[in-house]
Amino acid sequence: MNFRSDNVAGIAPEILAAIVAANAGTAPSYGADAVTERLAAAFAAVFEHEVTVFPVATGTAANALALATLTPVWGAIYCHEAAHVQTDECGAPEFFAGGAKLLPLPGEDGKLAPAVVEAALTEAGVVHHVQPAALSISQATEAGTLYRPAEIAALGALARRRGLALHMDGARFANAVAALGCSPADLTWRAGVDVLSFGATKNGALAAEAVVFFDAGRAQSFAYRRKRGGHLFSKMRFLSAQLDAYLADGLWLRNAAQANRMAARLAAGLAALPGARLRHPAEANEVFVELPAAAVARLEVAGAGFYRWGGAGAACLRLVTAFDTQPRDVEAFIASARGG
Amino acid sequence: MNFRSDNVAGIAPEILAAIVAANAGTAPSYGADAVTERLAAAFAAVFEHEVTVFPVATGTAANALALATLTPVWGAIYCHEAAHVQTDECGAPEFFAGGAKLLPLPGEDGKLAPAVVEAALTEAGVVHHVQPAALSISQATEAGTLYRPAEIAALGALARRRGLALHMDGARFANAVAALGCSPADLTWRAGVDVLSFGATKNGALAAEAVVFFDAGRAQSFAYRRKRGGHLFSKMRFLSAQLDAYLADGLWLRNAAQANRMAARLAAGLAALPGARLRHPAEANEVFVELPAAAVARLEVAGAGFYRWGGAGAACLRLVTAFDTQPRDVEAFIASARGG
Amino acid sequence: MNFRSDNVAGIAPEILAAIVAANAGTAPSYGADAVTERLAAAFAAVFEHEVTVFPVATGTAANALALATLTPVWGAIYCHEAAHVQTDECGAPEFFAGGAKLLPLPGEDGKLAPAVVEAALTEAGVVHHVQPAALSISQATEAGTLYRPAEIAALGALARRRGLALHMDGARFANAVAALGCSPADLTWRAGVDVLSFGATKNGALAAEAVVFFDAGRAQSFAYRRKRGGHLFSKMRFLSAQLDAYLADGLWLRNAAQANRMAARLAAGLAALPGARLRHPAEANEVFVELPAAAVARLEVAGAGFYRWGGAGAACLRLVTAFDTQPRDVEAFIASARGG
Amino acid sequence: MNFRSDNVAGIAPEILAAIVAANAGTAPSYGADAVTERLAAAFAAVFEHEVTVFPVATGTAANALALATLTPVWGAIYCHEAAHVQTDECGAPEFFAGGAKLLPLPGEDGKLAPAVVEAALTEAGVVHHVQPAALSISQATEAGTLYRPAEIAALGALARRRGLALHMDGARFANAVAALGCSPADLTWRAGVDVLSFGATKNGALAAEAVVFFDAGRAQSFAYRRKRGGHLFSKMRFLSAQLDAYLADGLWLRNAAQANRMAARLAAGLAALPGARLRHPAEANEVFVELPAAAVARLEVAGAGFYRWGGAGAACLRLVTAFDTQPRDVEAFIASARGG
Repeated sequence: MNFRSDNVAGIAPEILAAIVAANAGTAPSYGADAVTERLAAAFAAVFEHEVTVFPVATGTAANALALATLTPVWGAIYCHEAAHVQTDECGAPEFFAGGAKLLPLPGEDGKLAPAVVEAALTEAGVVHHVQPAALSISQATEAGTLYRPAEIAALGALARRRGLALHMDGARFANAVAALGCSPADLTWRAGVDVLSFGATKNGALAAEAVVFFDAGRAQSFAYRRKRGGHLFSKMRFLSAQLDAYLADGLWLRNAAQANRMAARLAAGLAALPGARLRHPAEANEVFVELPAAAVARLEVAGAGFYRWGGAGAACLRLVTAFDTQPRDVEAFIASARGG
Repeated sequence: MNFRSDNVAGIAPEILAAIVAANAGTAPSYGADAVTERLAAAFAAVFEHEVTVFPVATGTAANALALATLTPVWGAIYCHEAAHVQTDECGAPEFFAGGAKLLPLPGEDGKLAPAVVEAALTEAGVVHHVQPAALSISQATEAGTLYRPAEIAALGALARRRGLALHMDGARFANAVAALGCSPADLTWRAGVDVLSFGATKNGALAAEAVVFFDAGRAQSFAYRRKRGGHLFSKMRFLSAQLDAYLADGLWLRNAAQANRMAARLAAGLAALPGARLRHPAEANEVFVELPAAAVARLEVAGAGFYRWGGAGAACLRLVTAFDTQPRDVEAFIASARGG
Repeated sequence: MNFRSDNVAGIAPEILAAIVAANAGTAPSYGADAVTERLAAAFAAVFEHEVTVFPVATGTAANALALATLTPVWGAIYCHEAAHVQTDECGAPEFFAGGAKLLPLPGEDGKLAPAVVEAALTEAGVVHHVQPAALSISQATEAGTLYRPAEIAALGALARRRGLALHMDGARFANAVAALGCSPADLTWRAGVDVLSFGATKNGALAAEAVVFFDAGRAQSFAYRRKRGGHLFSKMRFLSAQLDAYLADGLWLRNAAQANRMAARLAAGLAALPGARLRHPAEANEVFVELPAAAVARLEVAGAGFYRWGGAGAACLRLVTAFDTQPRDVEAFIASARGG
Repeated sequence: MNFRSDNVAGIAPEILAAIVAANAGTAPSYGADAVTERLAAAFAAVFEHEVTVFPVATGTAANALALATLTPVWGAIYCHEAAHVQTDECGAPEFFAGGAKLLPLPGEDGKLAPAVVEAALTEAGVVHHVQPAALSISQATEAGTLYRPAEIAALGALARRRGLALHMDGARFANAVAALGCSPADLTWRAGVDVLSFGATKNGALAAEAVVFFDAGRAQSFAYRRKRGGHLFSKMRFLSAQLDAYLADGLWLRNAAQANRMAARLAAGLAALPGARLRHPAEANEVFVELPAAAVARLEVAGAGFYRWGGAGAACLRLVTAFDTQPRDVEAFIASARGG
């Protein structure tokens, strides 16, 4: 009954097996190994597009390094006010981007609307202002909701028109693809995304994320930035092996679909309780639910794991399911909340 | 016959087993797990001193984050001109330390002498100069040599007298301890070392290093710096499990001793060849040997792995042994070099 | 009729005379001269408090350097969303503060309310978030309004309670003091201000601002930061002479009072026009006035200087008066707007 | 008898008159004024080449901002080990260049030789190393010596061949031009210089330097960097007026020639003293002279102003003459040193 985060889960068996398998003999270091070299093709197949791929080990590194390639140090990066890059990375994007500025914007259910972004853009070319450089969105969002392809495309079109690069924080990209049932391409480059932080850690890896550039030109500085950030692994084969196994045979989507199903079940069960209310639609693997104080107290007594979320009114809980969440966990949680 | 680096080796079986064992159930993320929590005690036992320990995944991260805690952004960090932090980290220390300045100094066999450091110190308190802040030494050095405890203590005394913090890059600290046969304490805090980058990756881990502070006061900012650098792992238990297994039952010293023995054998065998000359004493697990061109050519034909090293005169090779190097690898290399 | 800014004005005669007078013989450089050395006493007299004073040449330098001393690089600086540091310094505070984060907050008439600040504070000690470090307010504000001493004291009390340093951007501090008629001390250290950017350039200097620390402990790093930012002047006597003349005989308050009077007259005259409306109370030397399109057109035809300001509805103009603005300028502007 | 620096001098009368003259009426701020706008043409005439010119107020700002435009944050800037950017700017170049690395090189009499630079260049394209980005030389050098056009051209050719930008720190550029009698063009763009820090402060300005780009493409980011560094002056006309007067009627060369003549006279007079020795040829307006201890003592008693310079053996003094140094000052100093 630990729904505090998907990162409390361990390693998916297929990925652990791949690490073990990669541990044979010596291998060239720093990414010159065979597993790393075949990653680009594997990602190209998933995205139906040539890509430049860089494995890193944390989502913060993926986001911060990706954003740093998209902005001059005097640039502005527009994002949702609840975006992970804005609220939960201790300023990593500003650090890696040399003091570039994140400009937080409001939006319902964790999503940005083009009109809100456009209204916030500072005037380009005026030396007194930071210069509009990038737009960053999260898919799935921090509210557990999803952008539809047309919504991303609208933001992508705005970005092109106003000279912004478009970044997607896809720490839970697999959950989005699994839930929407559309192609990874439709959610990314076809909609105008320039670079994707493609998460694997939350969905079954030990520690592996991929920064995926759909335009090789934008990727040029990444290798230097990664090394300088201490994020180039000497025994790279073990990072790459995780990503390789993650993509193989659709493991990434199977794992995500399981987490999504469990979240849907959890949301439905909790929403049916007297006095309960979902704060956001539970579209991926996160549930934000307001519960009566008595229900929360019962959960605490039962030792259930969850986070309290901010905001007025009734207590709101954030619950996250993972690739290994089981129906019995979900049912036990609902039963504890219901009591009686 | 791959002696290009100790990072071409894989994971030691004991460490891989620990990763597998840690993969049971859910665990609190970001270092609140049980394995991480017992690390401080394990390191305290090894160093006979209370320590504050932070696991990270790369040596560059360990060094750059450690140095950043020791200097203001207008500070000077003195180091050997061949130090890894100066030559092989793409400016990571400057990046993490906000533009602080590394001042490279000469020294025989990769080692710094107190008089050379003292002569280079800029005057404290003069606003035109960067301010003396830290001294960084490597143990084992980049020349494969070792500082004796008294040599470190002399640098430590200078550092204290002149207000410098003392950092040790211990990417190959295990090799140093195994070779010198002295206590980890004598090589670190008893000699004045404030913070140690304690390496494990090159000696059998998948990707794990520990930044060890002997003075908790200096560690205060580290947690923020680590997160902001993207080096805080959500599934921390898997980093900590590597370090835990590395220290358990003396694995770290057994592995290092094996690498050292193989290096000594390699050095002896190569030095005996006609026209060969060791450039530096082979005191740990690195051999720098000048060989006749014909010998190098034979090694290349044989497909042996090595790096050519800079400098005038005969070709110089850098050869590095690892925890899993076997006598047959060494003998095969020597035989190839000898030819005939 | 140029009301585009107070920085379109030149140098006040008294200040120009002081520059000329300082140009006699040689003088020690970098601030060791006699004029610079007596500045601290002059400022102490004005503020009835011991102070540490650093002359710089631009308001951006004053603000950015001051803020950099108040926050770690992983810190958060809370400010009004229209603050000059947030919108008009091209990211200088982030640059000087090593990527620290400005968090913009809403507030009527350019002013922050304690409750808004408190609600926005992130939790201290949680490594995922930037850490609350400083609060920055502007006096006069960017809306041409003023904080009363009690309002500042309320923010100061909040800052103390929550561990924030309090910075005041006083680019137009003289206008505030002249308008409110209270002591500089009541508006600063007595109300909890730790460091003040004390402006002179907009009010008659060639280029001179003073960063005034009311707590010498916070000033320790400033000298290094100033030099490293290229803001330590070799011929410092000429900066200091401007500030010295500015404070002497109340010139700073006389100049500001003149600008304030002209702004009041301008505001009254324009507000009386049909269809006109003041957007904010004109409390110092800035007037924000919404005018009918026809009036704006008449002003343009007349060659009047002003800025258009953002926002919905009728056109809004920003008009700024200076120490040398004359009644005839004001009357001419009003007449042009009125037409007929 | 104050030879501590050329920055102990005041403002040349012609430049002070220009400041006074510029103080008439209102003027557009931030460089849109008429004086600033005609600067580019004035500099183009001096350099026989189209240029992009940015006024700033300090030499440190000029150098640090110029270098920042020439290097990525993971770049290397090669310079003389005694260069002002390396030793006397408290890390400003590293700060403005986002942590880029200065690599100090040896060279006789403050000058770099192409072979020394070439031997030091790290391999381009290897991600572990900072990437060769720029070469910075000083003219006149910190040793008071001069590069001849052919010497600069040789460095310029190396720079082009190896992909380095070439920066010249011309804090005393006027002294170099006046001494060599060659055209400013021959010392800069014709020899491969990309950007010049053109000093005026030491040679008669209040506080004014110009960053001169010979290639407009390299200048693109400068305006943002200058603003973000707090170096964009609102009342820019007063900076530009200094530079305008400095170039008009050859004032810059007249002033420099006077300082050079006085330095030559000082060098000759001191070198003739028993036991004296010039450490470097006195080619511009600086004299480095080793004097017997008794002579130094006599100068101290006489209240003469000078700096002691480092190095072994006899005491070495650094003496700097300025545009307003008079023969009587020189003779008095020599007489004091001679004694008796």
